[in-house]
Amino acid sequence: MAGIAALSLSVQHVAAQPQIETAVETAREWREAHGAEIVRGFAHLLSLPNDAKDAPNIRRNAEYISGLFSERGFEMELLEVEGSPPLIYGLREAPGATRTIAIYVHYDGQPVEAANWTHGPYEATLYSAAMTDGGEVIPLPEDGDEIDEDWRLYARSASDDKAPIPALLAAIDALDEAGIGFSSNIKLVFDGEEEAGSDHLDDFLSTYAGKFSDIDLWLFCDGPTHQSGLPQLVFGVRGVTGLELTVYGPNRGLHSGHYGNWAPGPGWRLTQLLATMKDEKGRVRIKDFYKSSAPVSDAEREAIAAAPPVDDLLRETFGLAESEDDNALLGERMLIPALNLLGLKSAEVGPAARNVIPPSATAAIGVRLVKGNDPQAMLDLVEAHIKKQGYHIVREEPDAATRTEYPLIAKITRRDGYPAVRSNMSDERIAPLIGALRVAAEDLILTPSLGGSLPLYMFEVSSDAPIVILPIANYDNNQHAADENIRLGNLFYGIEAYAAVLTME
Amino acid sequence: MAGIAALSLSVQHVAAQPQIETAVETAREWREAHGAEIVRGFAHLLSLPNDAKDAPNIRRNAEYISGLFSERGFEMELLEVEGSPPLIYGLREAPGATRTIAIYVHYDGQPVEAANWTHGPYEATLYSAAMTDGGEVIPLPEDGDEIDEDWRLYARSASDDKAPIPALLAAIDALDEAGIGFSSNIKLVFDGEEEAGSDHLDDFLSTYAGKFSDIDLWLFCDGPTHQSGLPQLVFGVRGVTGLELTVYGPNRGLHSGHYGNWAPGPGWRLTQLLATMKDEKGRVRIKDFYKSSAPVSDAEREAIAAAPPVDDLLRETFGLAESEDDNALLGERMLIPALNLLGLKSAEVGPAARNVIPPSATAAIGVRLVKGNDPQAMLDLVEAHIKKQGYHIVREEPDAATRTEYPLIAKITRRDGYPAVRSNMSDERIAPLIGALRVAAEDLILTPSLGGSLPLYMFEVSSDAPIVILPIANYDNNQHAADENIRLGNLFYGIEAYAAVLTME
Repeated sequence: MAGIAALSLSVQHVAAQPQIETAVETAREWREAHGAEIVRGFAHLLSLPNDAKDAPNIRRNAEYISGLFSERGFEMELLEVEGSPPLIYGLREAPGATRTIAIYVHYDGQPVEAANWTHGPYEATLYSAAMTDGGEVIPLPEDGDEIDEDWRLYARSASDDKAPIPALLAAIDALDEAGIGFSSNIKLVFDGEEEAGSDHLDDFLSTYAGKFSDIDLWLFCDGPTHQSGLPQLVFGVRGVTGLELTVYGPNRGLHSGHYGNWAPGPGWRLTQLLATMKDEKGRVRIKDFYKSSAPVSDAEREAIAAAPPVDDLLRETFGLAESEDDNALLGERMLIPALNLLGLKSAEVGPAARNVIPPSATAAIGVRLVKGNDPQAMLDLVEAHIKKQGYHIVREEPDAATRTEYPLIAKITRRDGYPAVRSNMSDERIAPLIGALRVAAEDLILTPSLGGSLPLYMFEVSSDAPIVILPIANYDNNQHAADENIRLGNLFYGIEAYAAVLTME
Repeated sequence: MAGIAALSLSVQHVAAQPQIETAVETAREWREAHGAEIVRGFAHLLSLPNDAKDAPNIRRNAEYISGLFSERGFEMELLEVEGSPPLIYGLREAPGATRTIAIYVHYDGQPVEAANWTHGPYEATLYSAAMTDGGEVIPLPEDGDEIDEDWRLYARSASDDKAPIPALLAAIDALDEAGIGFSSNIKLVFDGEEEAGSDHLDDFLSTYAGKFSDIDLWLFCDGPTHQSGLPQLVFGVRGVTGLELTVYGPNRGLHSGHYGNWAPGPGWRLTQLLATMKDEKGRVRIKDFYKSSAPVSDAEREAIAAAPPVDDLLRETFGLAESEDDNALLGERMLIPALNLLGLKSAEVGPAARNVIPPSATAAIGVRLVKGNDPQAMLDLVEAHIKKQGYHIVREEPDAATRTEYPLIAKITRRDGYPAVRSNMSDERIAPLIGALRVAAEDLILTPSLGGSLPLYMFEVSSDAPIVILPIANYDNNQHAADENIRLGNLFYGIEAYAAVLTME
């Protein structure tokens, strides 16, 4: 990617880094020699059922994984809080290191509906290619077998999110075997209930605050690579909140003949109200909706411009003649807050539609947040806008007196939410990471923010260390669905990427 | 009603009409003397199950009713078309009459869900007052018992629409007994499948066209009296049509984080489109939507102004602080076409809402028509408006090529429909009727149009005779629901009203 080489951020680190080149080369040779062993080891790890709600099995995973790192010089602990799977915690100090990198993985997986799977979700099954590309079952490799990068290993959590574990173990083994030391202290923070909502993470972070206070960089190893298939390093996620809005017509359904164009229809009111919120280009018209957003830095703009263009392909794939704001780049749109209309409902449509003026109409509105946006303050802006359109706001169904007093009534129910996280791409604690990863992946894409949301803000609260996300899984991994898989080339990329991380300048 | 006396239409007929006064007085005396017999006879008629789909029973009704009129000098026929209950047809000619009045009744009733009824729906049960007012079951009256006008008779079709039958029979008996002749030839046209949609009415009207060509006035005996409780004569009904409108976003649900404010949301498009159709006062903004409507005549305006005010009460009852167009009168609003938003749907709201940009959003739109509005031409206007907003219109789900070509796509599915009917209140064929009815009901309200729709246009096609609706049932009759009932005072009003009709000038 010539575009990426032009990035001021990366230029300084694309310079020769012989110790990292050696580490990455060592990792590559190791996985070429030990690929079969790595795949079989991973298959065994995947055989441990890992639904967070399955207490005995999730603990078996924790103990097994903890043992693997313990054998490799990590001081391991299973941190406990009431009612949660253990948080796997480990530390391996590097002599003379002045930096501590925390590696976050989650070892639990999405619940499975076994009936939807081609094979048992916990029976890792190797394919000669993706099932959807005509791949066929092949046996797990024997030592010495050559391994094709397009082979796929199918099992729950093959990508999301056990894949980083064998990759990290292999990187460690390669470096240890070659006598190459780590350049940083490495902390392991492996979540056991991410897919169940990480409800106890807050509790872990506060109960064991001392273990997290000296971290200089958080590396989240989760998620897929870029839509283009190229590796990426991600600097943030959007936050999320939302509200449900109901407006009212008559207090009961009224015959649309006897009362139609006398009784105000709630659907008209809702559509008129919503139409004031966004223009036809998708720009939000709510006062100050964009105001609190952190500005987009030059580095972020350059990174977006340098990423492989995906917008045309996505528009074609999704059947869209145009995307919002005159085809503004997806990457740029992820750096401003979004107002999404997730659902609309008033009475019925289709064969169930009746000739009735309905009593109410409801919209489910989702808000995606960027850095700087406070979830509740953003909902305050939406509410202020609704008030400005003449609406009286209530929290419960309006009573008769309220209905008689106010022509326009909006019931608003706020959703919970949490803020965005977006690390400064120019942060000096991140720069060496970018440089190191470029050795393992010269096409590395720098992504200022995912559009989706993860509660990474919790880690910001516990220290001021920057947070970055380093995904290794293939984009088409069937994450959260049946027949989840990992492409072995992506697993192998992970080994080299982690070797670079462990030895970064 | 002083207001009504001022009506130019009615003034000439409120003048003394001794022969009608005599007829009405005769009818009153008759029902005072024979009330118990009338009620018991009606209870028997109600004991015949009359669901149009219950072929043997609906035919039993037809034969029984036909027999009742045959005994009273009518030449009766059961007209037949394939697959339909018979249409009861009868004629009693009046010597020297120069006018033929057709009396329409439907003898079928809504299907029943017996479990919802307090008593068997075909076991007519007398109450001392409305159940909802604490009425209690009382036995059917014996000859000579005094009858309270607030008693209610509960059974399917007690109001809708068998009530006119015993009322008309009693009026005939009273006049015959007193030797008072009819002033008009009277044709009976009793529909046996109105509640099932009158699907064969067209067929009857064309197959037996000769029987309907000499009619000078159609009198529809159906529906309830005015919301105020006062009797009314109604000059029209609105027509009805509608369409279903779907607009599109991405061709599949997209993650609202990853694609929110990049992928256009169909909900925003739908709300923006609908918001252009009606203003905040409820006025339709679609070009020419009001243009084809027959103008409101002075007589109609005066009639609306003279009707008892119900708007404040209705607003209070329905929990509305305001009604459309700055509280414009309900009666006036029924004389312009209505654009009703019957339903809205896009994905889900409430607990089922997901963080997804939905692929589509749909609105069910109902249109109520007034005289002059052609159903399809009105939908053409709505479509033209949608096109004008930049939409490409399709009839089926858009394919990939269409999606790629047009940013804005609207799928429109038209409903069938039929036009309004509104008779000229100044028609000289109607004037004598108003005058006659005022003798039976000095508070008679003249209602230019019901808001609801009935396919009366079919009778307009078969002749140019004006059509009016003369309801007798109490407004709170539980029409179409369980515990349907008639207030006996309303049944008795019917006897006097029909006596006036049969002897009108």
